[in-house]
Amino acid sequence: MPKVDAHDLEPVAGNGLLSRRVFLTTGVAGMALLRALPIAAQQNVPAWMRAPGAPLRPYGERSPREATVQRIVGSMPGTDGSGSSRTPLEFLEGMITPNSLHFERNHSGVPDIPPEQHRLLIHGLVRQPLTFDLAALSRYPLISRIHFVECSGNSAPLYAAQPAPGGAGALHGLVSCAEWTGVPLSTLLDEAGVRPDGKWVLAEGADAAAMSRSIPLEKALDDALIAIYQNGERLRPENGYPMRLLLPGWEGNTNVKWLRRLKVTADPVMTKDETSKYTDSMPGGKAMQFTFPMGVKSVITSPSGGLKMQGAGLYQISGIAWSGAGRIRRVDVSADGGKTWAPAALSGPVLPKALTRFRLPWQWNGGAAVLMSRAVDETGAVQPTRGAFIAARGASHRYHCNAIQSWAVLPAGEVRNVYA
Amino acid sequence: MPKVDAHDLEPVAGNGLLSRRVFLTTGVAGMALLRALPIAAQQNVPAWMRAPGAPLRPYGERSPREATVQRIVGSMPGTDGSGSSRTPLEFLEGMITPNSLHFERNHSGVPDIPPEQHRLLIHGLVRQPLTFDLAALSRYPLISRIHFVECSGNSAPLYAAQPAPGGAGALHGLVSCAEWTGVPLSTLLDEAGVRPDGKWVLAEGADAAAMSRSIPLEKALDDALIAIYQNGERLRPENGYPMRLLLPGWEGNTNVKWLRRLKVTADPVMTKDETSKYTDSMPGGKAMQFTFPMGVKSVITSPSGGLKMQGAGLYQISGIAWSGAGRIRRVDVSADGGKTWAPAALSGPVLPKALTRFRLPWQWNGGAAVLMSRAVDETGAVQPTRGAFIAARGASHRYHCNAIQSWAVLPAGEVRNVYA
Repeated sequence: MPKVDAHDLEPVAGNGLLSRRVFLTTGVAGMALLRALPIAAQQNVPAWMRAPGAPLRPYGERSPREATVQRIVGSMPGTDGSGSSRTPLEFLEGMITPNSLHFERNHSGVPDIPPEQHRLLIHGLVRQPLTFDLAALSRYPLISRIHFVECSGNSAPLYAAQPAPGGAGALHGLVSCAEWTGVPLSTLLDEAGVRPDGKWVLAEGADAAAMSRSIPLEKALDDALIAIYQNGERLRPENGYPMRLLLPGWEGNTNVKWLRRLKVTADPVMTKDETSKYTDSMPGGKAMQFTFPMGVKSVITSPSGGLKMQGAGLYQISGIAWSGAGRIRRVDVSADGGKTWAPAALSGPVLPKALTRFRLPWQWNGGAAVLMSRAVDETGAVQPTRGAFIAARGASHRYHCNAIQSWAVLPAGEVRNVYA
Repeated sequence: MPKVDAHDLEPVAGNGLLSRRVFLTTGVAGMALLRALPIAAQQNVPAWMRAPGAPLRPYGERSPREATVQRIVGSMPGTDGSGSSRTPLEFLEGMITPNSLHFERNHSGVPDIPPEQHRLLIHGLVRQPLTFDLAALSRYPLISRIHFVECSGNSAPLYAAQPAPGGAGALHGLVSCAEWTGVPLSTLLDEAGVRPDGKWVLAEGADAAAMSRSIPLEKALDDALIAIYQNGERLRPENGYPMRLLLPGWEGNTNVKWLRRLKVTADPVMTKDETSKYTDSMPGGKAMQFTFPMGVKSVITSPSGGLKMQGAGLYQISGIAWSGAGRIRRVDVSADGGKTWAPAALSGPVLPKALTRFRLPWQWNGGAAVLMSRAVDETGAVQPTRGAFIAARGASHRYHCNAIQSWAVLPAGEVRNVYA
């Protein structure tokens, strides 16, 4: 690796942002990064080396010492299964979300489905209605793709008039990313034979809410999957076991879980889930419907709300970016509330409709700072400021918030959500 | 998607192998793939839709209905923690191994390490010895990479004179793949300042075996990581919590877990773990030492030993390929015991030193068949046949077996390990 150039240690934007090249090279030795500890402490053989450790196990579990890293659960009054649990983004790294921490958004709890009894029906405007069980579906060609899923209600706290308390997970944790393996829906629809008047597909889940959405046929024939594996193993129950619809880049609720029925129709069915909710109220009392793709977005996860700075010095700003339209092209970071910006390093592979990890070194001087990130996707779409977003969408909007998050770093080291 | 061409349905190699293009297109409708089920079965509302499902949970678990998918545990006589548990490859898909099913190879159990008490010492031929705790290490620049780890003893059953029973996991499950996030070791060594006479690095684990290996400095300065996250979350205990060495593409035991010490030395230390084992016995009584990189390799995971064919018809052959030297360039598949071959489709992104999923459609006629896969990496290295491998290495070799696996498919649908 090349050594870092001395000029790379000069700030490239206000309030201590350094060049992304610093972390792509060696040679940070001059930066007083270290808090070296007494070496004597190392010379004793610790207690855990003095006796054999725990046995081999057929199915691993995380360390109990990490048990505080949990999804943030919130359910509707009077229920324990209608609501969501959010991924604790501020405690994770990389692009993959471990399955146990993938967010869930359920409309009437998680059904317990015996996989051998589950059926997927394809009917409506098709030449040949078909029914699949899991074994039959598993015979079809599988493909694997790494994609995010994001609830359209993610980041809704940013609509509040005053900044809500909470960290990156509580505010933005209705997004996760996994490697999904499944059967292209186009293959199944081709087998059934869509009639010329078929233009939409009703997707219905086998939960108690019979969660249902109308999907344009074009998307169903594009990159839609019937997913049966998630990060290598079978789907988790809260992610649709034994099968779910996956519509890469589209709002989470359309990725219907526990998928039991696909009905090809001429028009959208106007289900309860696309009329009473999942429509976007606009200024003037109108609403937008079928606003499927999730916008270009990013959030800094470290430092972020609820975390605590450990004294002035060098930090690595780390966050995630994504877009329902394709790949992330760039992410800019500001440490001075948006006055100046510097481009972050993107961690490859940068995949379409997947989380992309970005990072940038930051020399925190111990004073007040406001951190922001702004993503740009391959279509050129730019993540908006909160002010611009609210001005365009109005305050009664509830979904599709992709506004820039601002984290205030206070001189005492506290980090909190602010509007800047 | 384009429709499949009729000529793509003609076999491209013996015994029913079809073009990989078949599964990259739609239009398999003519292939009698389906076993359509009575539609009436779908019209009833199943029991699990009649009442609200299970509550939201802070930390998810897989379905109890998948509990039979387990690592295959084998420990040394008289111990329960010295041995290995193997990834059940035949039940997984895609490239990512879920953390609970990542293989483990432990030399004296899994230590229970309080992360705040753990220390990593860097000393020896350096200008400035350094000690890091997890908090200090976490301040350093993190990078994320998807890499396989493979035990050098993986696939050792293929050295046996007669084909061993067992499936893909039991025979080849000492390989797994995860997204690892950590600090480049080069950054830490640069901070410590390696002296000109420093050419090797001793890596020691904080387990009861004090597992220790000597690593050439060149690798330590190349792509080595001190990993602290695995698939987004903190390392699992059996994968080195709170920190491990990751040497992409090199034999698993050198990726020292529970890493507590890195000592820069002029020569290899000749630890017990690189003299009494992890050396390669050759014909004539000599042995090779420090044979670090894992060879180019592949294995078909479906169909594979222990799985059962469900009648003649169209199947998707699916497997994994990897190489310690870089990316997989191609994988060829044979259904007639190696007489004829056809190229499989590789599932992207094809990453260096990572598992790559390959797939190929196969029209099984219900008769006897022998399935094989043969990987080629970007250096041009070709996976050898078992015969060629044994001839070169001898029968007393125990490690680094990358020979081609042969699966016999019997007319009754049984699949088993054979030498072909």
